[in-house]
Amino acid sequence: MGTTRLATVPEPKYWQLKTVIGEALDSDFSVGEILPNERDLAARFGVARATLRQALEQLEMEGRLQRRRGVGTTVAPPRMGVDVSTTQHTWPGAAGQDSWQPVDSSMVVPPAAVARLLETRSGEEAHTVRRLRVTHGQSVATELLYVPSSSVPELSAIDAPSGPARARAVLRELQRLGLEGQERAVELGSARADDAKELDRLPGAPVLIVTTRYFAGGRTAAVSMATYRADTCRLTFGDSGDLEISHDEQERRAS
Amino acid sequence: MGTTRLATVPEPKYWQLKTVIGEALDSDFSVGEILPNERDLAARFGVARATLRQALEQLEMEGRLQRRRGVGTTVAPPRMGVDVSTTQHTWPGAAGQDSWQPVDSSMVVPPAAVARLLETRSGEEAHTVRRLRVTHGQSVATELLYVPSSSVPELSAIDAPSGPARARAVLRELQRLGLEGQERAVELGSARADDAKELDRLPGAPVLIVTTRYFAGGRTAAVSMATYRADTCRLTFGDSGDLEISHDEQERRAS
Repeated sequence: MGTTRLATVPEPKYWQLKTVIGEALDSDFSVGEILPNERDLAARFGVARATLRQALEQLEMEGRLQRRRGVGTTVAPPRMGVDVSTTQHTWPGAAGQDSWQPVDSSMVVPPAAVARLLETRSGEEAHTVRRLRVTHGQSVATELLYVPSSSVPELSAIDAPSGPARARAVLRELQRLGLEGQERAVELGSARADDAKELDRLPGAPVLIVTTRYFAGGRTAAVSMATYRADTCRLTFGDSGDLEISHDEQERRAS
Repeated sequence: MGTTRLATVPEPKYWQLKTVIGEALDSDFSVGEILPNERDLAARFGVARATLRQALEQLEMEGRLQRRRGVGTTVAPPRMGVDVSTTQHTWPGAAGQDSWQPVDSSMVVPPAAVARLLETRSGEEAHTVRRLRVTHGQSVATELLYVPSSSVPELSAIDAPSGPARARAVLRELQRLGLEGQERAVELGSARADDAKELDRLPGAPVLIVTTRYFAGGRTAAVSMATYRADTCRLTFGDSGDLEISHDEQERRAS
């Protein structure tokens, strides 16, 4: 099919340019190298700045390029394999997930969609735990965990009003429940302003939204909304054994 | 943290506009409704066309809007939950995955990255199976499955040169192997021209690339590269029980 179909597909100019630049990145550039400025690149490839910009956006979306304020456009390293395994039946923040750093905790009325998942009454407050995921020294994800009071009945006894201490207390209480299962969904989103700041991105940058629903006692015990950088992350799922292989592969690609 | 941090975040104008339009979509528009044209919208919100276009791109990325040639910009229905479960230990094309339609099959030299996963010699040909995934009557994904000859030794006896018949033959042979496990990765990508055509998107449209590695006999028996529409799909992972709930939730959001 490939060729015959391809012939019938109108390829926009930026798309052809993207392919050409992509090949140039493989042959003429190394990871971390800074690209010439847009004017010079447009001249080099004989295209309008607008067309060049579209092609660069494509390559950024594919994780080939990184665009950072004050640095310019650099050749991106291979994406990091970040484990988002569903087979791992552990609570958020439990041992083995040390790369998650508790940042803050409070009580809020969850958005309607989250309240539906939590099966709480509309307007009913839930505990929130805000965490930052750091992998290989880079912030790769922010998470907002919603925990209904019914999941952590003992928490009222704890007097830390907010901050990491309260976050750890909520997670500790949560882990008393027997975790029965998890459900996850991944979808494309755009970074909210506060997430963007923590992830060193601009608001609206493409992100991967991972929604996780934790089940205990036959009901939803917590809901996590995690925002992963789409430019640097490759979310991996599978049996622990397989994940090793994924990391080897990442290293091979890097080397 | 939320508010204090937010105050320090410079929100670009298109981002504020995106929020305003998003609220207008909730209150003033219904799913499938066609939005006014860009000139009228820009006037209604008192912004430049360029700013409006950025805001609309954001909403499209978040799955709130759909932009289709000849139709215009419409309010998108909730994203479909599409099962990409890792717990389901079945071969591609096996019973229960009937929404995958075999399209074609041939032999090609896999790209270097795929050859590494397959552990085949560079330049060694592998069988390919091209399939289309249709959910609720919509094309949601295209897949290119790479199968090394060593995984389907009997296939040489089959004389279908290409097409769906050959594709089914390769899948049938593959299913003779005892499947030991799967590893999956999800990352952001942009639609290749041929995938874009099958998915009714423009080349370069944001897509979710799902790479699956199938293990049998202690080695990689096949590698699948699937391209999912990022605008209409929400990839779901979890135990079969949990997936039910996800679908319920989708329906609730739709109703």
